[in-house]
Amino acid sequence: MKELKVGVVGFGTVGAGVVENLLRNREVIAKRTGVMLTLTCVADLDTTTDRGVALPEGILCNDAAEAIRRSDIIVELVGGTTFAKKLILDALNAGKSVVTANKALLALHGEELFAAAEKNNVDLYYEASVAGGIPIIKALREGLAANRINRIFGIMNGTCNYILTRMEREGVNFDEVLADAQRLGYAEANPSLDIDGFDTAHKTAILASLAYGRWFGIENMTIEGIRDLELEDLNYALELGYRIKLLGVIKNVNGAVEMSVRPTLIPQEALLAGIMDVFNGVMVEGDFVGQTLFYGRGAGRQATASAVVADIVDVALNYNSGATRRIPAFRQGEQFESVTPQNECTSRYYLRLIVEDCPGVIASITKILADREISISSLIQHENQGENVSLVILTHPAMEKEIRSAMDELSKLSVNRSTAKMLRIEEL
Amino acid sequence: MKELKVGVVGFGTVGAGVVENLLRNREVIAKRTGVMLTLTCVADLDTTTDRGVALPEGILCNDAAEAIRRSDIIVELVGGTTFAKKLILDALNAGKSVVTANKALLALHGEELFAAAEKNNVDLYYEASVAGGIPIIKALREGLAANRINRIFGIMNGTCNYILTRMEREGVNFDEVLADAQRLGYAEANPSLDIDGFDTAHKTAILASLAYGRWFGIENMTIEGIRDLELEDLNYALELGYRIKLLGVIKNVNGAVEMSVRPTLIPQEALLAGIMDVFNGVMVEGDFVGQTLFYGRGAGRQATASAVVADIVDVALNYNSGATRRIPAFRQGEQFESVTPQNECTSRYYLRLIVEDCPGVIASITKILADREISISSLIQHENQGENVSLVILTHPAMEKEIRSAMDELSKLSVNRSTAKMLRIEEL
Repeated sequence: MKELKVGVVGFGTVGAGVVENLLRNREVIAKRTGVMLTLTCVADLDTTTDRGVALPEGILCNDAAEAIRRSDIIVELVGGTTFAKKLILDALNAGKSVVTANKALLALHGEELFAAAEKNNVDLYYEASVAGGIPIIKALREGLAANRINRIFGIMNGTCNYILTRMEREGVNFDEVLADAQRLGYAEANPSLDIDGFDTAHKTAILASLAYGRWFGIENMTIEGIRDLELEDLNYALELGYRIKLLGVIKNVNGAVEMSVRPTLIPQEALLAGIMDVFNGVMVEGDFVGQTLFYGRGAGRQATASAVVADIVDVALNYNSGATRRIPAFRQGEQFESVTPQNECTSRYYLRLIVEDCPGVIASITKILADREISISSLIQHENQGENVSLVILTHPAMEKEIRSAMDELSKLSVNRSTAKMLRIEEL
Repeated sequence: MKELKVGVVGFGTVGAGVVENLLRNREVIAKRTGVMLTLTCVADLDTTTDRGVALPEGILCNDAAEAIRRSDIIVELVGGTTFAKKLILDALNAGKSVVTANKALLALHGEELFAAAEKNNVDLYYEASVAGGIPIIKALREGLAANRINRIFGIMNGTCNYILTRMEREGVNFDEVLADAQRLGYAEANPSLDIDGFDTAHKTAILASLAYGRWFGIENMTIEGIRDLELEDLNYALELGYRIKLLGVIKNVNGAVEMSVRPTLIPQEALLAGIMDVFNGVMVEGDFVGQTLFYGRGAGRQATASAVVADIVDVALNYNSGATRRIPAFRQGEQFESVTPQNECTSRYYLRLIVEDCPGVIASITKILADREISISSLIQHENQGENVSLVILTHPAMEKEIRSAMDELSKLSVNRSTAKMLRIEEL
């Protein structure tokens, strides 16, 4: 059995998980795959902190270049987009294959990295960059390769899903749950990457790229996080038979691709709506396979390590059979005609207006919608809300620019009391 | 771009789906994978029936040998275990790689077929044999390769899941739903393979084999179908917070493997319990990844074709990079110490006794359980059931032989009025 030398750069949470996996499951992996993985080097600037995993003598060092020299495969787990980029390019240029979990780097500099991998005829894999332990990239690239992809809906940020789950279950406001999540370590001190949707956007861009054959960044993506969601919206959604999730949405509508990250109402009875707490789930709909769902832990030391080591195994299987670049890091080949701006996308919408409770309010609001041929599918105004009331409207499919134009005009009504909410509804 | 010649033997439901996919999505598959698949031959004894797909001139023939001669890859979709076996062996011995969806054949003769593939240095893949369009075999063999597998629970028979869903939703008995399912084409005229659990058992054996490195047949597996399930059991399960599903269950308990197919109570709030109608779902729990779930259509012309063509792509990628047998059909390498007979497995149980409603009944029943140290976790007896009443008991974990011994003794009680029900409970 051939032995492959693995070097890990970045001995943080995921790095420690990868090291633990390579040491603990080495024999099992060899039995299952015929690949014997040998950890030869772990590089990190901090060589003293205890990571709860016992490294063999002489493995730990503080020099990434040393890791590259000593290994056949380099695992990049330092994060960020500067040193990580240099490290990956150095490894590729040294003729070493690379495994990374760095979604932000891929979304930003994917094409440059893929070109370097191609030039050096080595592999660059990134299963762990999307949805942690769930093998969704392999599913999209290989398992569902026979399909045109119609839609992908992904719950891909555990922090957001955890916050939404607790808000709904405990009836607590966003700020309170966020503070508690930070205390418990489920949210970063600076939570913006997660709660403002950028992390989900990086992952959405990667899945869209694999689905449609152009490396999409997040530059032109509409990205909305969950910061402005109120408990009231979660509760109205439930009352109406839906649940609000932060969704990465990718669609192919007659050859035109739509992409966004937005809090979205999905039907409560859909399996995707049952994904709670820190778990992730990705629904992929293909023209032949129909709807599929892939569910699991989207983050964490061990789950992410599972995906990283799966990539290492893939690289090693390629080495073993002389088939490096059997599947390239990314294959260009556009399977769409255009990208539709969000304003021109058609969807159903949830609107919540906060208005003065007085005669004629509903008449004037519904007229504004009617003027734009926006059709109402349901409407709720509860009794006894006090002076200002929430008026919740679900629409039939309408173009976003019509909805935004209506919202603009609604905001100018004298009875309008606060910024209205507008969320998309997706059916499954 | 290299072109690979594909021959399909068996032009039935799935065969027609594969042909449709290869013709319709050829360009998309080429863009995504770099593999150009060319359908060169479709062989079937019936060359006249319209399958709703237009074959190019000269493709259809009635000779499987002709398909082997004309192709690099042979797709076996004839089903059964005699001609199909000969066909696969002929193709392998002619140096052609094979893709099949034939779970019964694999469960019965897997080792012989794998040996022939190895001898001839070609590939033999079978993604479509388990859970239709869901890429679960790839997930287990590659995506989750870094994990020791703790448990696999699979809902893998669409017919059974459809019947259970309708019984529960409509409050209709098994016989009535089965008859309707047969009328609608969701169940075979001879439904035994599905409803008596054998189909699920074949799939369970394949997943267990991939998880633990020995090719298991179904010979020693405990297999129970859904034929004896009564509406009352489904309703009691719901009342107790569970739902009954026909589960293929695979577990590794301290190095000992447990395998069975049985109707099983699982917690209603578990995602697996939300899989309804003809859909399939497989929960895989690994030591690093934790719980994952893979969901989709388990059967049908197009979904199954999706999995078959994914295998063809894998074979073709191997050809293209000179890496045939990069991943062998099956890799022997046992990752367990023993197989535990069902009688010695420990589980929680659901018992429903049908007894005469008279003084002392509960006392005598619970004494029989207590004598075997079987602890009761809950007990229901509803009022106003008439002369004979159902007494439902959920137990704490107990060994199956203790439960069976208790059931034997319970059946001899003078108050016993009918065969008691015994189902396993699995937590998620």
